[in-house]
Amino acid sequence: MFEIRERAANGRIGRLTTKHGTVTTPTLLPVINPNLNRVTPRQMKQRHGAQMVITNSYIIRKTPALHEKAVKDGVHKLLDWDGPVMTDSGTFQAYVYGDVDVTPEEVVEFQKAIGVDVGTLLDVFTVPETGHEQAEAEMRTTLERTRKAAQAKGDMLLAATVQGGVHLDLREECARELGSIHTDVNPIGGVVPLMEQARYAELTRVILAAKRGLPAGRPVHLFGAGHPLVFPLAAALGCDLFDSASYAKYAKDGRMMFPWGTRSLDELTELPCHCASCQDYANAKELLKAPEGERLDALTHHNLAVSFAEIRRVQQAIHDGDLWELVEERAAQNPALADALRVLKEPQNQIHLERAEPLSGTRALQYRGHHTLARPAVARLHRRILERWTPTKASCLLLPATTKPYSEYYQPRLKGLLNHDPVVETPLGPIPLELDLVWPVAQNVMPQTLDAESQAIIDAYRDAFFKKFDGCDVLPFEPEDAPGEAEGPSHDTLDEFDSRRVRSVARHQFGIEAGDALTKGTLTFRRSPSNRRVRNIKADDVHVASLRARDGLLSLTMDGAKRIMAAGARHRLTLGADAAPFIAEGKNPMAKFVESADQDLRPGDECLLVGPGDVLLAIGRMHLAGWEIGEVERGPAARNRGKAEKDEDA
Amino acid sequence: MFEIRERAANGRIGRLTTKHGTVTTPTLLPVINPNLNRVTPRQMKQRHGAQMVITNSYIIRKTPALHEKAVKDGVHKLLDWDGPVMTDSGTFQAYVYGDVDVTPEEVVEFQKAIGVDVGTLLDVFTVPETGHEQAEAEMRTTLERTRKAAQAKGDMLLAATVQGGVHLDLREECARELGSIHTDVNPIGGVVPLMEQARYAELTRVILAAKRGLPAGRPVHLFGAGHPLVFPLAAALGCDLFDSASYAKYAKDGRMMFPWGTRSLDELTELPCHCASCQDYANAKELLKAPEGERLDALTHHNLAVSFAEIRRVQQAIHDGDLWELVEERAAQNPALADALRVLKEPQNQIHLERAEPLSGTRALQYRGHHTLARPAVARLHRRILERWTPTKASCLLLPATTKPYSEYYQPRLKGLLNHDPVVETPLGPIPLELDLVWPVAQNVMPQTLDAESQAIIDAYRDAFFKKFDGCDVLPFEPEDAPGEAEGPSHDTLDEFDSRRVRSVARHQFGIEAGDALTKGTLTFRRSPSNRRVRNIKADDVHVASLRARDGLLSLTMDGAKRIMAAGARHRLTLGADAAPFIAEGKNPMAKFVESADQDLRPGDECLLVGPGDVLLAIGRMHLAGWEIGEVERGPAARNRGKAEKDEDA
Repeated sequence: MFEIRERAANGRIGRLTTKHGTVTTPTLLPVINPNLNRVTPRQMKQRHGAQMVITNSYIIRKTPALHEKAVKDGVHKLLDWDGPVMTDSGTFQAYVYGDVDVTPEEVVEFQKAIGVDVGTLLDVFTVPETGHEQAEAEMRTTLERTRKAAQAKGDMLLAATVQGGVHLDLREECARELGSIHTDVNPIGGVVPLMEQARYAELTRVILAAKRGLPAGRPVHLFGAGHPLVFPLAAALGCDLFDSASYAKYAKDGRMMFPWGTRSLDELTELPCHCASCQDYANAKELLKAPEGERLDALTHHNLAVSFAEIRRVQQAIHDGDLWELVEERAAQNPALADALRVLKEPQNQIHLERAEPLSGTRALQYRGHHTLARPAVARLHRRILERWTPTKASCLLLPATTKPYSEYYQPRLKGLLNHDPVVETPLGPIPLELDLVWPVAQNVMPQTLDAESQAIIDAYRDAFFKKFDGCDVLPFEPEDAPGEAEGPSHDTLDEFDSRRVRSVARHQFGIEAGDALTKGTLTFRRSPSNRRVRNIKADDVHVASLRARDGLLSLTMDGAKRIMAAGARHRLTLGADAAPFIAEGKNPMAKFVESADQDLRPGDECLLVGPGDVLLAIGRMHLAGWEIGEVERGPAARNRGKAEKDEDA
Repeated sequence: MFEIRERAANGRIGRLTTKHGTVTTPTLLPVINPNLNRVTPRQMKQRHGAQMVITNSYIIRKTPALHEKAVKDGVHKLLDWDGPVMTDSGTFQAYVYGDVDVTPEEVVEFQKAIGVDVGTLLDVFTVPETGHEQAEAEMRTTLERTRKAAQAKGDMLLAATVQGGVHLDLREECARELGSIHTDVNPIGGVVPLMEQARYAELTRVILAAKRGLPAGRPVHLFGAGHPLVFPLAAALGCDLFDSASYAKYAKDGRMMFPWGTRSLDELTELPCHCASCQDYANAKELLKAPEGERLDALTHHNLAVSFAEIRRVQQAIHDGDLWELVEERAAQNPALADALRVLKEPQNQIHLERAEPLSGTRALQYRGHHTLARPAVARLHRRILERWTPTKASCLLLPATTKPYSEYYQPRLKGLLNHDPVVETPLGPIPLELDLVWPVAQNVMPQTLDAESQAIIDAYRDAFFKKFDGCDVLPFEPEDAPGEAEGPSHDTLDEFDSRRVRSVARHQFGIEAGDALTKGTLTFRRSPSNRRVRNIKADDVHVASLRARDGLLSLTMDGAKRIMAAGARHRLTLGADAAPFIAEGKNPMAKFVESADQDLRPGDECLLVGPGDVLLAIGRMHLAGWEIGEVERGPAARNRGKAEKDEDA
């Protein structure tokens, strides 16, 4: 019932389908107090764009008037809301009050009876202080109840919560077990104390552990997360749903939420906000003096406006592929988030995060601070250069960074450069000139001076890079080294350089053997008439690939695909006999019909769509990562590019 | 006509008084196109809180219909706006078109004739590419015209622009010369190309150079600064006024301003904004499809709403004393601003910025990134500890950081600690336990792990600190070292510790000699009944000072003031015979009546208000810095605390 539509970092824009409509995630489910609603669900939708709400089935069940109406008319009538409704179960009440007077079975039955779209089972809320042994026992109870609830859920979507306290092994195990039980949404529970105490580093570890265990295709709800401060980080880690009553609670306490933190109205002089509510008041004092009801309305709507705007900013950032930028910005606004960001820099987490990181972005990679060069995309770039690029000459010529794209600046000097391996000193470290169009080498916005930690990353990469040149000379570039500067290169020189470029890009993208197979033979090019950039690539007169302007990487043709297949490239999505004919018709390979996939495929990778007997059916572009296949039930695994006869990207 | 009311970093909340009312700065003057107004000045005020507008006298003068109406009815009627109006002169037009057909004299006369509140003279716009020689010649022309215009200005306030291109010596000289000419507002000009090209590091240098030359009391206008991105940095450097037509130009180009940057509407899917205009549309596509006029209105109001909200955020940050926090946050949102922040870390600029930095903040110092520990307040704390604190024992006992305030945590263990110099390992480095209440030692929010550059600052300070212990043992603290742990200290032990505390704070605040004089003799204390903290301090039974809860520093009594005066403390504000009687009556010492001031006084410092014959009249708290006296014409130099008999802060 959940489909991944777009992705950035480990975050995704998804669609969750319920009986009462489809919701675009990430999104915030405002908590509706069934007893008292300052803002109705309809207003939430009209004014703030709420798509789904959450209320508490335990409170409805316990309150006779609500109970009766809910059972008679359904929860939607009760709330006067025809969109999707999720209900919580009383777990949080059991945590706050010690116990609740209802059985796990009754909780599920009641939610079914009142017609909720996503019901939650009564799991055990493990607090951060709980020791390993007790947390494990509580987790086993939660799992046992989950198995029963999954049997009983009927057509209600079931939210089954990951517990385990701060014990990461338990979180991962619980998540893995839940993955094997048929449930529909997997909240991460027991985290409200961490958020209340701004323990975001621990929260990050808990989310990472849960996500490691959960199937990639499950929507993840971060229970009780309602402050906009946490949305970008949580979304970047793969959380899809948030909920909170904070907008109302904070308003009641006279507190205003901002994407960068919380301020009490009574300590403000100005209203540093541009929402419609704040705009009605000249300054903070005026709002403070407003009648209580009016003030409470204004603060409630302010908190909702700010929260939903941040949700939209997260969605936009996923769409644009710059969610890391947003996460890093927020980390610079809160010291506890700064600590959370450090967790992501730990090697095992970097490796984990790289597994879902798209191959390239649609916008430039932008520097935001000391985490930028530790992003998975940069680590991948560096690693691939070190592993897949090989010097071909006896000397490396070090070119100063200059106006981008580097190769166009150096084009007039190419003739002299090609006696060496030309390497540009870029803000991302030394990059072979041939790879200068590969995202994000030509697509980044960096400061002139790096912070010390970023510089250390570049220095370490630089050292490793020049180790590859053991036995080669490393020569600084002098303009006089390069004859023919003023004239522009001959066609031959440009072809020679671009042959090197295409071979290096092919290795970078497909690995050494497959890359070499793709580009074997004499290369010839169709070029852009305006800037002479390579568009189509022929190897021994066969069109094997095209070079994409957007990210400097290659799009395969069928002939190219056959070449890398023959070389054993691990870029396959294998479809069964039933699905194969649809692929031939141009349909996208749906994730659930893919029989197997090569694990190292990343979103955005070129892939070989093969049928029974390893027959190449078409070329695809990965939408999922290879390892996600089998964990995702809905939506395509890749986009079918057919026989790739249209030169769509070049 | 300009008064500094509140301050943070080098920024200030000020009040600029004109014939048509008083404006609170920092503020944005929206540019009103006299030919075409999508948003009227009245709407700007009602909807966005604009206080003052700017329009172009050159265009009014050149357009016959406007010219006639302006001369007949005045510029206020022309714009239908009864608030303050500033006009530009045609300088920018001369820059764009090469020349203008009007003399400098005519420009001033015309602005007077149409009744503008702040008129601008026709200076020469020096572009960043201009070499030193030509830039100097242009600057001399500007200065010559300024002298003439100052003669001719009548009762119109005159804006005289600092030019000099990117040549910092010229900027500073031009500013210094303008300071000696009677002008009212000093714009920094010729910076639009720097802002258009995001050359914020150079912009920062130019502003710093201009501010070094200008009198502190002059309001500074950053000409053409209209993107909210630059407001926090420019305000922190001491710019008071901004103006720009960007809100309208960007709207016309379909571009949306955000505090964190600019996005084109057509590349957005969501509207990541909570302003009233954006709230009317479900998403970016819907706004994009709106009729042109409607869309243009929405974008214009969006840009204005975002800009004015950022102005309010800057004002709030100055009020709260956390403007550096905001500057650092913005630097994490833009690589070019990150480079600008580095300029502030250069030693000579750090020294310059410290000169106006208030003594303490009202809120906690919050970590935002690698600049935080390079802030003037932290550098000052470290420097004063190194210069003014002296170990008294043969060994230093290193205490681990713990729950704040440190001394309360360590109180039960005091007896054992006092055989050594107890030093706490805080996030700001090693701090003598006696200074633990001094802002920002007890008032900071730091991450668990510092970035490498911040850590290097702490390490360097730490090394210097322990150099002071040459010959002393540095002992790690073991709980068993401290007898009496469970019991709480006797009154004697607490008094002994607090005597050390008060003596160390006195040295920290007033210097070694004055501090020792203040606390000479036997110290006794009146304590808070609730937490036993020191409130009033008696030395040999004379009440000499009180310890402030807010920032852990001392407020003097008259007796205390006499002690530090006798010890030659350089904390004097000297008033002439005419002003002295008003001080005795409790009036604040107005800046223009102060005859001399000790240069090292900082805003927030205790000061001695003395009259002729060096007679102590009263105690003051500095509002200005000592060196600013003589550069400020309006408002108080300090707050008169009278004989300091009321125990206001303790």
